[in-house]
Order: sequence, then structure tokens, then C-alpha cells
Amino acid sequence: MTTFEQLERASAAKAAMAAASTEQKNRALLAMADALEARCASILSANALDLESAQGHISDVMLDRLSLNENRIASMAEGIRQVAALPDPVGQVLRIVDRPNGLHIEKTAVPMGVIAIIYESRPNVTSDAAALALKAGSACVLRGGKEAHRSAAAIVEALRLGLERSGLPQDALQLVEDTTRQSANELMTAVGLVDLLIPRGGAGLIRACVENATVNVIETGTGICHVYVDAEADPDMALDIVENAKTSRPSVCNAEEVLLVHRDIAEEFLPRLKARIPQVELRLCPRAAAIIPGTPAGDIDFDTEFLDYILAVKVVDSLEDAIVHIGEHSTGHSDAIITRDARAAQVFLRSVDSAAVYWNASTRFTDGGEFGLGCEMGISTQKLHARGPMGLEELCTYKYIITGNGQIR
Amino acid sequence: MTTFEQLERASAAKAAMAAASTEQKNRALLAMADALEARCASILSANALDLESAQGHISDVMLDRLSLNENRIASMAEGIRQVAALPDPVGQVLRIVDRPNGLHIEKTAVPMGVIAIIYESRPNVTSDAAALALKAGSACVLRGGKEAHRSAAAIVEALRLGLERSGLPQDALQLVEDTTRQSANELMTAVGLVDLLIPRGGAGLIRACVENATVNVIETGTGICHVYVDAEADPDMALDIVENAKTSRPSVCNAEEVLLVHRDIAEEFLPRLKARIPQVELRLCPRAAAIIPGTPAGDIDFDTEFLDYILAVKVVDSLEDAIVHIGEHSTGHSDAIITRDARAAQVFLRSVDSAAVYWNASTRFTDGGEFGLGCEMGISTQKLHARGPMGLEELCTYKYIITGNGQIR
Repeated sequence: MTTFEQLERASAAKAAMAAASTEQKNRALLAMADALEARCASILSANALDLESAQGHISDVMLDRLSLNENRIASMAEGIRQVAALPDPVGQVLRIVDRPNGLHIEKTAVPMGVIAIIYESRPNVTSDAAALALKAGSACVLRGGKEAHRSAAAIVEALRLGLERSGLPQDALQLVEDTTRQSANELMTAVGLVDLLIPRGGAGLIRACVENATVNVIETGTGICHVYVDAEADPDMALDIVENAKTSRPSVCNAEEVLLVHRDIAEEFLPRLKARIPQVELRLCPRAAAIIPGTPAGDIDFDTEFLDYILAVKVVDSLEDAIVHIGEHSTGHSDAIITRDARAAQVFLRSVDSAAVYWNASTRFTDGGEFGLGCEMGISTQKLHARGPMGLEELCTYKYIITGNGQIR
Repeated sequence: MTTFEQLERASAAKAAMAAASTEQKNRALLAMADALEARCASILSANALDLESAQGHISDVMLDRLSLNENRIASMAEGIRQVAALPDPVGQVLRIVDRPNGLHIEKTAVPMGVIAIIYESRPNVTSDAAALALKAGSACVLRGGKEAHRSAAAIVEALRLGLERSGLPQDALQLVEDTTRQSANELMTAVGLVDLLIPRGGAGLIRACVENATVNVIETGTGICHVYVDAEADPDMALDIVENAKTSRPSVCNAEEVLLVHRDIAEEFLPRLKARIPQVELRLCPRAAAIIPGTPAGDIDFDTEFLDYILAVKVVDSLEDAIVHIGEHSTGHSDAIITRDARAAQVFLRSVDSAAVYWNASTRFTDGGEFGLGCEMGISTQKLHARGPMGLEELCTYKYIITGNGQIR
């Protein structure tokens, strides 16, 4: 089927999804989870074919991401069941206004319509993204990476079976069949058929969407996150947080990439840091290099999302310098200050223009689950619509429903 | 100055705007209003030059829009004072989450940063848009039409004087000096310098922004609004509402352009309508033309924003047909049903996917003031971020402010 036909089918299914009750959507999600587990064997065979073709063409890390087993499928099913358990965002009344002329106005959350997601090779994104978009009352069009296509197709087949069993249209979930660049371009420009496009993946994919899309896009992901250790920091707390933010999971977007240290604490702090995280390559500004050994930092090191055991380190003269540096180099994801000085913290929290700003905590908490949203579709680094973790509410739009008895203006 | 330099200046001023207190912003707005009135004479001279150059090149309606007088300037000043009186959206805590691990999370409204507005020739948009953007804590970059440039420059000069008098940076308000197409393109693609772009004007301008912009855009304006007169409508109420929605101000986006009438009421209703609004040219579908005289409607008449005393009329077989027609032809702005049947109304309100859906009231109420927002920057017809009237809250974004005592993950 062409991508355009698939989009038309998704679009035709959106009214049924929008009208579905919470119970019906939850029943569908549970049936999708069951179908995923029931079809485990065929999903694993499809995955084996993907892995075989990919062997030698992609890195071991990528191969591991692509690879499925019974446990991973069970945890995908569990993820869908967790989405079923979350409150339904659709129909929530966000504000009520009663006007002097008798008009009753309800600002009410409603589904987006068709949500398209362009992603790369992790098969679990297929089920996560589908569950979230469908629970939010939208039809869902998935466009995954070529390497994972057979796995994704087997997963989507199971999920569609679950939808059908609960009386919702299978067409509300589409996996784009065309895995060439052409189909991604079609999604980006399908004005009137795609209500929201979410790219989930590397910086290149996200840039391509932002530059080429004429449909509404939410940018997700890139995180050059900073931790600033103030002159008034508790050094033990700062060591714990920097270690956690850098090393607990270096490959994720909320991991720390840059450490800024106030000059007054640098001589004491940096040697202890070096001893604490010996597995991390430190890329040092000249003043940091005068205190501890490490690789001299190039300019690009302060603008790089390493996603690895690498940390750029810079000594700054003041809180203000730290804020200016972050303003120039942050991707607006998550940035933290470690300090006992409440005034310095307030200045930092107010001045740093990022989705999440922290005082005395690790940047690793920027996550839908950790924020109490129950789930997330990604972390938005743009300012329009959703900023930070996007949960079910952020996957909805709203409309004004106005009831009168003949009012004219 | 080049547009890029102007954007850099606005960007440099945004921190001061974001940090300004409510009192400081309100003082600035009142000083801006005073300066506008104090400089009335020089604004009128500039306007006279604009009018002179435009004479013969633009229509009389456009000339009237462009033209200023003392009363119009006084009402622009009054508009700014009204914005000063509105509550400050910045710093509002939208949600508080206290996590089991002790993290305290506040989702807080913060300014966008730099808001750019591309508009056409109404001088009053200059002061309205500036007041709203500045009150929302953002720097504001205005790019008006060539015909009104001297007027806009005189207005902005006065407004900047007001800013300066109250201690806020003049550079927070910029009127783009280059009035060629080049500057509009620069604004559309100034990623990192423009946080939000709002086009205010005709369909061509809005389409150009949506197609070419790489910065975040909110589409405003185009309204092909429908009124559906159901079989169970009170015909007197329906006549009042159709007359109001069509004729009270035909040139605005919330005016009715298309009337749908249920077949069971058409024979009674259409002759009364014809008599009620004789000044309106009716473009009739064949079934309507069999009942009353009028112009036969071409296909395009059901997809045209007339903004004039013209109404396309179609007889439909059912509520469902009305909903399908609206789904295919509405611009998603405002659509109404007139009926005594609560069930039919609920189906309509749920199924019609527009920013504002009305039961027994005129579409003309879609307006920030009428919705109780106090003001508006425009009416969004997109689903992302803001839908319907955009007030001060919709001109803000939010961030998560997280306070801990050493939490790691």
C-alpha cells in the first residue's frame, strides 16, 4: 500500500478512535498486550531475520537494541498494560467559563487526530508509541527504521489483532510499508492527514523533520545537559550527583555532558571527581587541565552530545558565567545547579531557559515516569505545546465547546 | 540595521524582559500608552505620508484600514492600558508534583523569549501585538506591511520611548526595517533567535509561513465557518443567529461563510432567510435553488472565505451529512449547530473537529474578549499549543523547576 493510502486509512479511522470510550480503549490495549505475547514466536522469527540482515552492517550496540527475546516482548506487553491503567486524558474539562450573556464555555481536551511517529530501530518504540497514541484517542502511523522493519511488522500485526478483537478499527494503527526516505518526506508534508509528527531518534532525523516538515512537529530528545557546581555546593552531594548524571546511563538524553565548576571550589572538587569516576574521559578547559590530568577540550566538546563515558569540564568565574555558558551551549533539555546558596539557586532556576531546571538533584530525573506522568512519548526540547516529558495529556489538543440559547453578538 | 542584527538585539533583551516584575511591565505598558498619545501629531504625519503613497495602489477598504486619526490612536493607547490591567501569566504555577523520593516539581509558566509577528497594514496591530508580547515577558519583533511602514515606525518609536522610561530595554521591541520579502524569510528561518512566529493576515501570508518556516509557527485566522440548522431547530433563533453570524461583521474570520440546512426544515426556513438578509448574495446548491432564487453555487463556493455579504447554502439530508460536509470543508475555526435536540447537539459538538463548536449561538463569539481571556493575539486554527483565541497564557511556554536535596537516580 502507498503511504498516502495508509494515511487516508488512518484518517478514516480517527473518528472511531475519538469516539471510543475509556473502557473500550483500555480493553483494546489489554487485548493488544495479550496478542503481543500470544504471537511471541512469530515476532521472534521476524526479529531473527532482521538481525541476520543487519549483522555486519550496524554496530554491536545497535544490534543489541534491535534484538528481541521473550523477556523483552513480555516487558513490551507490560508497558502497554501500564498505559491502559493510566487515566484517560480525552474529555477532561480544562476550564469552564460562564459569561454574563449566558454562554457556557468548556475548554475540553480532545484527541489530535492522526499522530505520526518516525523512529529508528528499537522495536519496543513500536508498541510504546502505538499504545500512547491510541490511548490519547488518536490514530497512529508508525514509520520505523529499515533494519527493524520485519520485527515492527510482526509487532504491529499482533497489535492490530488486539484492536480488532475489541471492536476498534485496525486501520487506526498503521506501520508505513515503504521504508525509503520517500515515505518519511510524505509524512512530513501530509498537511490535513497528519495532525502531529513526532520524530524519535538521533539529531539528524530530528533536524530533517524540523527543516522539511510542513505539518506540526514536536522536536524530541537532544540533550546537552549541564551540571553547575557552585562555590557554595556541598562537595559530597555534588560528587554523587555528577557521578549519577554522567555514569548511571550515559546513552540517554538526560545524562550530563558538561560539568561547570566555580573557580573557588575547583581545586578541591576536581581531584576528588577524577578519583570518583575514573572510567570517564574528562575533556578539560585549560584552567581545569591545570588542576587535574585529562584530554584538552576542543571547542566542539562543549557542544557535543557524547552519549558516552565522556565529560566536558570547564571552570567558571561566577554563577553568571555559568548561566551565560549554559545559555549559549545548552539544548534546553535539563540543567542543574548544586549549591547551598538559595539565592544563587533561584537566579539559576529563573535564568536558565531549559525544559527542566534542577537544584540539588540529578538531571537523570527528566522522564515521564519520574515526573509522575506515568509514561512518556519523548522529551520535548521545543517551547511550543509540550516542553519536557510528553505524557498522554501532551498528546491531546483541546477545543472550546460553547452552549447557548440563541446568543448573538 | 539588518534583520539579523535586530533579532540579535531582541534576543539580548529577552533576559531582562523575562526577569521584569509584573509591576515593571505594567508601568512600561502605561508609559507606552502615554507616549503614543503624546506623539499623536508625529504619528499622524507619518500616517499621512503612508496614505499618500498608497493612494491609487490599494483598495478603499485597505486605505481605511491604514488610516489613523486621533480617536484611533486614543483607542490604541486604551488597548495597551487594558493589557496592563490583565493578570500576568508569567510565573503561574500550573502544576505541583511532590514525588516519593522528595523531589518537588513545579510546572511553571515562563516567557517564550522572542515572539515575532508578521502582519499586514493595520497600524493598530503594531501596538496590540507589542503590548501582548511584552506583557507575556517576551521580546517582540514586528514585521509589518510596506504600505504602513512609516506609521508603524512612528508608533514603535513612541512605544520604545515608553519602555525606556520605565527602565526596560528599548531593544525588547523591534520593528523590522527591511520591508522586502527577504526579511520575512529571515524571520521564518531564524532558528535560535525566534522562539515563536505568528503570522497575522491573509491566507497567502499564512500559507507562506507554514510552508517555509523552520521556527515554531502558530497559524491564525482563516475561517470558513458553518452554521447547521437542524430539523429540530427553533426557526426564529436560527434566523437570528444566521443573520448575526453572516452580517454583523462579514470581514472577520469568525463570520459565517456556509449555511447547511436540514431538508425537513429547508422549505420553511430558506424563504424566511431570503427575506431576512436581502443584502446577502446567496450561492445555492441545486436543492436550495429549487426553493428560493439565488446564484447557483460552484464547487469552490463551499471552500471560500468570502469575508463579504455572500453566503453559500446547502441542503443536507441529515445531521451526519452536515458533520461530514463540515469535516471536509471547514478550516477548523468555528462551527455551530442550531437545534432543540440535545442528542443531535452532543453528536455535533463531539464530532466536529474545530477550535470552537457552538450549540445555539453565533460563531461570532470566537474572540479572546468574548471568551473572557481579556484580549487576543489572534485565533489559532492549528491543534498544537494554542487552539482558538490566543490570550496571554498562550503566548507563554512553561518549564519544570525541580528542587531536591541530593537525589540521584
